[in-house]
Amino acid sequence: MSRYLDPAWQIAMRVRFDFNNLMAENIGEEHGFSMAELERHAHLAQAALAAVQAQRRAGGLRWMELPYQEVDALLALAAEIRARFKNFVVLGIGGSALGTIALQDELLHPFHNQLPAAQRGSPALYVLDNIDPDWLSGLLDVLDPTETCFNIVTKSGDTAETMAQLLWARRLLIDRLGAARYAEHIVATTDAVTGSLRPLVNGERFRSCRVPDGVGGRFSVLSPVGLLPAAVTDMDVPALLAGAAYADRLSQTPFLWQNAGLMFALTQYLAYRRGKPMSVMMPYAQGLRTVADWYAQLWAESLGKALDRQGQVVNVGPTPIKTLGATDQHSQVQLFVEGPHDKIFTFIFADKFGHQVEIPAWQSGQDAVDYLGGHTFNELLAAEAAGTALALAAAGRPNAAFHVPEINAFTAGQLFYLLEVATAVSGEFYNINAFDQPGVEGGKVRAFALMGRPGYEAKRAEIEAAREKRDARYEI
Amino acid sequence: MSRYLDPAWQIAMRVRFDFNNLMAENIGEEHGFSMAELERHAHLAQAALAAVQAQRRAGGLRWMELPYQEVDALLALAAEIRARFKNFVVLGIGGSALGTIALQDELLHPFHNQLPAAQRGSPALYVLDNIDPDWLSGLLDVLDPTETCFNIVTKSGDTAETMAQLLWARRLLIDRLGAARYAEHIVATTDAVTGSLRPLVNGERFRSCRVPDGVGGRFSVLSPVGLLPAAVTDMDVPALLAGAAYADRLSQTPFLWQNAGLMFALTQYLAYRRGKPMSVMMPYAQGLRTVADWYAQLWAESLGKALDRQGQVVNVGPTPIKTLGATDQHSQVQLFVEGPHDKIFTFIFADKFGHQVEIPAWQSGQDAVDYLGGHTFNELLAAEAAGTALALAAAGRPNAAFHVPEINAFTAGQLFYLLEVATAVSGEFYNINAFDQPGVEGGKVRAFALMGRPGYEAKRAEIEAAREKRDARYEI
Repeated sequence: MSRYLDPAWQIAMRVRFDFNNLMAENIGEEHGFSMAELERHAHLAQAALAAVQAQRRAGGLRWMELPYQEVDALLALAAEIRARFKNFVVLGIGGSALGTIALQDELLHPFHNQLPAAQRGSPALYVLDNIDPDWLSGLLDVLDPTETCFNIVTKSGDTAETMAQLLWARRLLIDRLGAARYAEHIVATTDAVTGSLRPLVNGERFRSCRVPDGVGGRFSVLSPVGLLPAAVTDMDVPALLAGAAYADRLSQTPFLWQNAGLMFALTQYLAYRRGKPMSVMMPYAQGLRTVADWYAQLWAESLGKALDRQGQVVNVGPTPIKTLGATDQHSQVQLFVEGPHDKIFTFIFADKFGHQVEIPAWQSGQDAVDYLGGHTFNELLAAEAAGTALALAAAGRPNAAFHVPEINAFTAGQLFYLLEVATAVSGEFYNINAFDQPGVEGGKVRAFALMGRPGYEAKRAEIEAAREKRDARYEI
Repeated sequence: MSRYLDPAWQIAMRVRFDFNNLMAENIGEEHGFSMAELERHAHLAQAALAAVQAQRRAGGLRWMELPYQEVDALLALAAEIRARFKNFVVLGIGGSALGTIALQDELLHPFHNQLPAAQRGSPALYVLDNIDPDWLSGLLDVLDPTETCFNIVTKSGDTAETMAQLLWARRLLIDRLGAARYAEHIVATTDAVTGSLRPLVNGERFRSCRVPDGVGGRFSVLSPVGLLPAAVTDMDVPALLAGAAYADRLSQTPFLWQNAGLMFALTQYLAYRRGKPMSVMMPYAQGLRTVADWYAQLWAESLGKALDRQGQVVNVGPTPIKTLGATDQHSQVQLFVEGPHDKIFTFIFADKFGHQVEIPAWQSGQDAVDYLGGHTFNELLAAEAAGTALALAAAGRPNAAFHVPEINAFTAGQLFYLLEVATAVSGEFYNINAFDQPGVEGGKVRAFALMGRPGYEAKRAEIEAAREKRDARYEI
C-alpha cells in the first residue's frame, strides 16, 4: 500500500490551523476574537458550508470532484513526454500557470532547471506566464526548441497572451522541424469541445488533455492544467490527489471548531468586516512562496466583486498580500507591526524540511555570531517564524498559522483543496459569485481593440477619443 | 564622452510620470483629483521637499550623495573577482539583498545563471536572502564553493540570518580549501568601523567594502551593497550613478508640476488620506518585477510607523502591493477593477525593450488567433498595459504610470533615486521618521531569545510562559 493511503500517516500529515493569535486572550479585545463571538457565527459558517455542499450535489462545483479523477491516461502521456523531451514549457497565464508554478517551487529541487539532466531525471520546467519580449527571447539562449515540448494551456483559447505564444512556439518548431513534424512538440490543455483552441488541436493533430467542464482557471491546479506538468516532472500525482481527497473529507464536517478551512474562512471574513481589508499570506519556506501567489489569485479573483448576488453594487472583497518569511521580516514587517490595524495575517509553517542544515560553530569572539553555531538553519527559521508571530501578537495584530507537517505532494494537495473550499465558503459569506471574473473583461476588450481584432472597432475609436483628451500638464 | 553624460541623451532617457488617470477629468470626481486640489497642496509639497533638502545640507541624508561617490577601487575589486570566480553569492537579507535582486532582474540576461560561462562573460549571481535549509542545500548541487566568491552584506553584523550564512559558507570553504586560504573567497560589505562583522574582517583578512555612514539598508542600493554585485556582473556602474545624479538634479526643482517624484509622493499621500491605504505597484516588464519588491520594502519600512515625530501614537502608513503585468491581469485585476475603492495604482511601463519579438502569422481560421499575427509581443504587452490602465480609469480607479524610455542602467539609477527621494518627502507628509525601523526589533529579539543568545534569557522565559497559555481548542 502506498503510504499516503495509510490512515495513520494521513493523520500525521494533516495540515493544522492554529488560530490562538486571533483570540482576545493573546492579542487583546480590541483586535482579537472572543470564543463567544466565533460561537455566535457558527451557524453562519455552517449555513455557508451547507450551501456549498448543496451546490456540489447539484453538480455545480465540478472542481470539488477533481481528487477522484482517473489519471492513467495522463500519466501515460506524461511518461512519454518525460522520456522524449529535455524541456517542458507551459504557455499559459493566470490560473493556467499559478498552480503549476506553486507545484514546481514546492515539489521540485529548488534549482531543478540547472541540474544536469541525468541528476534531474525529468525535463526542465519553464512556465511562461508573461509576454515580455526580452524574457521570451532570452529563453531561446538556454533552451533548444527541438528538444522541447510546449504545453499550451487555455480553456477558452481566447487568451491573447497564450495564443500569441502558441504562434511563436509553432513558428520556432516549424522553422527547425518542418510543418509535418512540429505538432509532435505541442500538447494542448483545453476544453474538450468548445473554444478556439480545440479546432486547432483537431486540425493540427496536437496531443491534448481536457480541462473538465465547470472547472475555472483558478480552481484548476488539480486538473490536467496542473497535473500534466506535475506528472512530466515526476511529481507524485496520486499522492497529490490523495491529499486533496483527505482535505475534502476533513472539510465536510459541519462543526466550526473541527473544520480548519471553515474556521479560516470565517475569521478572515469577520476580520474584513471589522475593518481589516488586507489578508497577508506569509509562508516560511522558499518552496511555499508561490503558494501565496496562487492563493492571491484565488482569493482576489473569487471574492473581489462589484455586485452581490442580488445585483446590488457592493464593491467588496479582501485584498490578499503575498509575502515570504524570513525574507520579508526585513521588508514588510515594520509596517505590519506598527502601521494601521488593517490586516489579518496567515503564516504557513513547514514543520519539516527535506534537509537539516547545520550552522557550523565558530568561536569568533563576537556575541552576534557565537550563539548561532551548533544550531541548524531549520531551528533558526522556526525561531524567526515564532518570533514574528509573537511580535505581531504583542502589537495586537491578529495572526494565524497553517502548519504543514512536511513539504510533500500529499500536504500540497491538501492545502490547495482546503483553500479552495475556504474560498467557495467565503463566496457565501460575501454573498457574491466566487466563480466568475467580469472585471477582467474591460482590460481584455481594450487590448483586443488596440491589437486590431475584428469586431472591436467601436471600442478602438472610443480609446482613441479618450487619448485625445490627455492633458500634457499631467505628465512630468 | 560616454553617452550617459550627453544632455540630449539624458533628456531622451528621462523617466516620466503620467498622472492623467489620477485626475477627475478621466476617472470622475469621487475618486479623482482636481487641478485645484493639487494646487492647494503645492505649498505642502514644497515645504516637504525643502525640509528634506535642509536635512541633506545638514549632512543628515548621506544616501543622497551616493551618485557622486568614487568607485575606482570598487570597480578594480570587482574586476579581480570577475576574472577569478565562476559564481558570486550574496549573503544578505532585506535592504542588503533587494536592490541587488532588482538590478539583477533589470540589467542581466533573464537566464544569466543558466548561460554557458563564456557567453555570460561574468560570474553567475545568486542572492541568498532567506535561510530555507532546502534552498541552501540545493544550491550546493549546482555550484562549487571552490569556484565561488561569497559576498556577506550586513552593516551591523547583527543580522542572525546573514551571520548564520557566513558560518555556513566559511565551513564549506575551509573544508575544501583549508583555513589558510578560505578567506580569499569572502568579501564583506559592512560598516567601516562599527558592528560585529568588521572585527572578523580584520581578524580573518577578508576583503571588504564599506557601507557609508548614514546609509540605511533600504537606501543602500547605490552604495557598495548594490554596486559590488553590479560591477562583478559587468553592469554599467557609472551609468547607474549618472542616472541617479540626473534624478537628483530633476528632484531639486521646487515646482510641484515639474517634479515627478514630488507629484508622485503628494498624490500617493492624498490618496491615503482619502481612504486608499493600498499602493499598488505594477511594472509591465519581467525585468522590472523586483523593482516592485524593492519599492515595497522602501515604502513599507520607511512609512509604516507607530509614532509620529512628536511621539504620538498614529499607526500610520500605506501598504505597498507588488504585482506584475500582464501576468496579474489574470490574477489581481478582477479585484482591482471591481473591489473596494481602497487603492491607488502605479504602473511602470517600459517604452523600449532590448528585443522586438514578432508574433508570427497563422491564418488558422480562428478569430481569436488570426488577428495577432504580424504584430509583436512588444505591441501586445503595450496593448495589455494600456487596456488595463483604461479599464481601471473607467471603473474610477486612480492610476498613474512611470514611463521608462528604455531598460538600462541609467534609467534604473534614475528610478531608484527618484523613488528614494519620494520616500523621504513622504516621511515629511506623514510626519514620521522615515529612516528607522523600530518595529523590526520585536521579532528579532524573540528570535535571539529562542536561539539562546546570551542576554535574552528573560525574553525567553516570557515566550515560554506565553506558550504555556496556548489553548488546544484554538488549533484544528
